[in-house]
Amino acid sequence: MTSRRKNARRAPIGVFDSGVGGLTVLRSLRALLPREKFIYVGDTARVPYGSKSAETVKRFGLEIAAFLKDRGVKMLVVACNTVSSVALPELRRFFPGPVLGVIEPGARAALAATRTRRVGVIGTEGTIRSGAYENALHRQDGKVRVVSRACPLFVPLVEEGWVDHPVTRRVAREYLKPLLTAKMDTLVLGCTHYPLLKTVLQRAAGSVELIDSADETAKAVRSRLLQDDLLAEGPSKGSVEYYSSDDPEKFARLGHTFLRWNLKNVKRLRLDGV
Amino acid sequence: MTSRRKNARRAPIGVFDSGVGGLTVLRSLRALLPREKFIYVGDTARVPYGSKSAETVKRFGLEIAAFLKDRGVKMLVVACNTVSSVALPELRRFFPGPVLGVIEPGARAALAATRTRRVGVIGTEGTIRSGAYENALHRQDGKVRVVSRACPLFVPLVEEGWVDHPVTRRVAREYLKPLLTAKMDTLVLGCTHYPLLKTVLQRAAGSVELIDSADETAKAVRSRLLQDDLLAEGPSKGSVEYYSSDDPEKFARLGHTFLRWNLKNVKRLRLDGV
Repeated sequence: MTSRRKNARRAPIGVFDSGVGGLTVLRSLRALLPREKFIYVGDTARVPYGSKSAETVKRFGLEIAAFLKDRGVKMLVVACNTVSSVALPELRRFFPGPVLGVIEPGARAALAATRTRRVGVIGTEGTIRSGAYENALHRQDGKVRVVSRACPLFVPLVEEGWVDHPVTRRVAREYLKPLLTAKMDTLVLGCTHYPLLKTVLQRAAGSVELIDSADETAKAVRSRLLQDDLLAEGPSKGSVEYYSSDDPEKFARLGHTFLRWNLKNVKRLRLDGV
Repeated sequence: MTSRRKNARRAPIGVFDSGVGGLTVLRSLRALLPREKFIYVGDTARVPYGSKSAETVKRFGLEIAAFLKDRGVKMLVVACNTVSSVALPELRRFFPGPVLGVIEPGARAALAATRTRRVGVIGTEGTIRSGAYENALHRQDGKVRVVSRACPLFVPLVEEGWVDHPVTRRVAREYLKPLLTAKMDTLVLGCTHYPLLKTVLQRAAGSVELIDSADETAKAVRSRLLQDDLLAEGPSKGSVEYYSSDDPEKFARLGHTFLRWNLKNVKRLRLDGV
């Protein structure tokens, strides 16, 4: 084994999102890959991405990827559905190592779960408008029927802390109505914030199976590390470095609201002009 | 009259906001000052500002002010409650002409309206946390009692188009409850999006008087232009140039949803890194 290969294995994995939502993906990654080092970037100064144009989201994604590339990461995990929906080709042209998003793993899990081959997808405006899940589902199964809907109020409701509030239940019923009418039996939670609404969504969706991309993405990351011989090995202990483009303390506070994590030592990342 | 003075009068007025919300202020400005030329900037690539740290909001505000200064505006109107709350001192140090925000005019109007001297204020997290309205109200009347509340769901509800929806009515009742308990008789709509919720807010607030800063701000702008001898004069025809930091078409679309305006010829503004 060359020392170059050793160094490549020891390199961290870059994970990024528009904010704290991607922490759900990081949680799954850490559970499955406890020896890996991670660098997590949340672009909290410009969050949310979901309502912005594809061109702007691509630019933001490339700026973060440039930072992570400079930090020598061995792989990029795009823990944001909006960026994964619109910017993977650009990120793959830019970054020399593997770049994994959350869409393909989510689509694969949905196809494994559905019996009726009617799959619902909910996400931000940007994710839904891109048709990324629809394309990924159809690439894997030409006959699956996909019904999708943008749910722009879910992220602010989660950030308000109303994860099990009558208003959120009402909004969930309203958003899911057309998907239930279309008789989907599987629903992809196409936004990293939505797993926090699982209870409310499950109640509104009845017997429909909810698909959270986080665990599937972590599995895809492990497979790819194995395939490329990049898995951290031996007694190395995992770790995470956190960067946020807005106030680090605020990131830590939001991370606590979001997942009850105590994030210490979050650093400020100055993206150009942010 | 020197030609320099003439040129100063002919210069445009710079108006900016984090997005389309400030168009409510622009509307009042155009109604009151039909001969003025305006340059409006909406920072739609980084919207919203209301949930971000003061430091970041200051930086964003200064970047936009630098663009407007380069364009030779004679005055800056900060048509955004969040920026007005946290960045006026910095903007005044940076910009040589008059800089007017929406807070002082709103506070003045509230004090003119209240009989019980109990005033409610609603706004974004950033505006409420800054205490800017509270300070402005107390500067003008040391004995007024102020109750305030951040209402982070109102902006996304407006942008979803749910301006008269059962969910919005429910949210309004919940947000206003503590303010009504405190027996306010006047409520400042401390965010430029909120005038679009006037019907719902009035229903939830009963006989409480709602204060929309837009008209008051326009009056303050006119007074200041008169005072500084900067009012556009003669047969000059007013106009607006629009700039947005995200997709101009999207800005025009949002502007239409927001105020039913047909915005033509919106230009893209490249703020650093956006």
